[in-house]
Amino acid sequence: MTDTVISSATKTHIIGFDRPFTVIGERINPTGRKKLAAEMKEYNFETVEKDALAQVAAGAHMLDVNAGIPLADEPDILAKSIQLVQSLTDVPLCIDSSIVEALERGLEVYQGKALLNSVTGEEERLEAVLPLVKKYNCAVVGISNDETGISEDPDVRFEVARTIVERAADFGIPREDVVIDPLVMPIGALGNAGQGALRLIRRLREELKVNTTCGASNMSFGLPNRHGLNASFLSMAIGAGMTTAIMNPLHEQEMHSVWGADVIAGHDKDCASWIRRFREPAAEGAEAGTGARGGRGERRRRRVA
Amino acid sequence: MTDTVISSATKTHIIGFDRPFTVIGERINPTGRKKLAAEMKEYNFETVEKDALAQVAAGAHMLDVNAGIPLADEPDILAKSIQLVQSLTDVPLCIDSSIVEALERGLEVYQGKALLNSVTGEEERLEAVLPLVKKYNCAVVGISNDETGISEDPDVRFEVARTIVERAADFGIPREDVVIDPLVMPIGALGNAGQGALRLIRRLREELKVNTTCGASNMSFGLPNRHGLNASFLSMAIGAGMTTAIMNPLHEQEMHSVWGADVIAGHDKDCASWIRRFREPAAEGAEAGTGARGGRGERRRRRVA
Repeated sequence: MTDTVISSATKTHIIGFDRPFTVIGERINPTGRKKLAAEMKEYNFETVEKDALAQVAAGAHMLDVNAGIPLADEPDILAKSIQLVQSLTDVPLCIDSSIVEALERGLEVYQGKALLNSVTGEEERLEAVLPLVKKYNCAVVGISNDETGISEDPDVRFEVARTIVERAADFGIPREDVVIDPLVMPIGALGNAGQGALRLIRRLREELKVNTTCGASNMSFGLPNRHGLNASFLSMAIGAGMTTAIMNPLHEQEMHSVWGADVIAGHDKDCASWIRRFREPAAEGAEAGTGARGGRGERRRRRVA
Repeated sequence: MTDTVISSATKTHIIGFDRPFTVIGERINPTGRKKLAAEMKEYNFETVEKDALAQVAAGAHMLDVNAGIPLADEPDILAKSIQLVQSLTDVPLCIDSSIVEALERGLEVYQGKALLNSVTGEEERLEAVLPLVKKYNCAVVGISNDETGISEDPDVRFEVARTIVERAADFGIPREDVVIDPLVMPIGALGNAGQGALRLIRRLREELKVNTTCGASNMSFGLPNRHGLNASFLSMAIGAGMTTAIMNPLHEQEMHSVWGADVIAGHDKDCASWIRRFREPAAEGAEAGTGARGGRGERRRRRVA
């Protein structure tokens, strides 16, 4: 059992093996969103504000905040975004940048224990980012690629993850504060990407005993009906032991898949969240009455002899 | 790798570890369907006919046929139903009854190699049904309960499954002709039913090396948004190694979940079935053109440093 404790100024969230799956909202990210990029560059946080509130309302447990805009002052915009989002909502944040200076500026202004996104297995990155993780006592996403790039072989990616966990330990960062991203590949390009990801997630949990996250929608890149494919992948990944994903909580299909997988995995005690979310109004009214709700419309497929 | 070969007079279907998941249509079953029961009792097969065609059109690879109607001549109605369905479609059938005489009448008229549904681990049933399996050279669903009933402990159900496989071997029936139903419990009543089922499916595959099936919708009994929960369960069960289910192919949500899981599990080569099913018309037209389809609407969440 591994618990990664994350917090805002007033709220603690735990990413853990035997807990409901943690949904990290991915929307506050200008990469590929021209309008958002243009706004953030001008320090106009209207869309950031909307995205923050909408994602939390949709069920995000944490929000990723990224300000990667070409030719802009990313560290400053990231810090301002974080401050704004923290003023709007109490969910903990993921501070997301590939620029070390931006990560540090984000950590400086962040209230609570953040999840830093991210470090890779590249020695230079480990040396630059892990001291920040230690200094600010945060948790960190470790991405399983290194100087040699992203290996298509899940076993190589496992070894990179192991290196990240070991190097973190060298800096005094406990295993539970490293959340590994096994790097999900597009299955349209790499036919065994799904099997590979599931096996890797399982190994990371069982052998390395770390929490795992991913950009869930990468799997479906280039394919039609992406929401449907993401939904299947999320349920299967949760079944294999994945504990969090950076994803779009505004997509109902994916969220239902996550909540359903929580039920099946036994992480939604008494199915209470599922029932609260989906209980039909008519059934609610009937609760104090006949108690017939459970059996309505049911038929037994098979009479066991 | 275990392949269970099933056939009709003209078509072979294989249930197997490394193949697309086999959907067995459950609709031709009067249990809990008053109108269908009344019709079948009068030898009116109008609904049976519609259900057969609709399920195959929706993607069923096999059809379950059950004629369990109180106070009716089940063996005769079952035989007539099978003959009718075989005249309408070439998919192989599952001959479903808890009455041994009905199973045998079904086998007598069936053309091809059927899947017999079912035998339990009860010694009396084993002694009655396994000789039929041998005599008619069919495959059989083995349900993991015995004289002591249905155990809530998946490890006990595993041992019942092992007994069924061993007793079948005594009768000269190979392991690959026994498809085990691990008995899915309603998670609304038994909180660890999901975890238990997934672990049992995995053990049945890895240790007993058999194909597995289940009545997938049992999991969600009594809960709201059953289709959503069934969808998550099906993806997770396929991830754990389940190879077939008796289910309603008319429910899109469950079917999409199965097809998505096939892609992720690497059982849909080049994602060809998924693309054929969900390709957008606009993209089809563009195929010979720019080839830009894959990238449309895509954004990279993260710049790997």
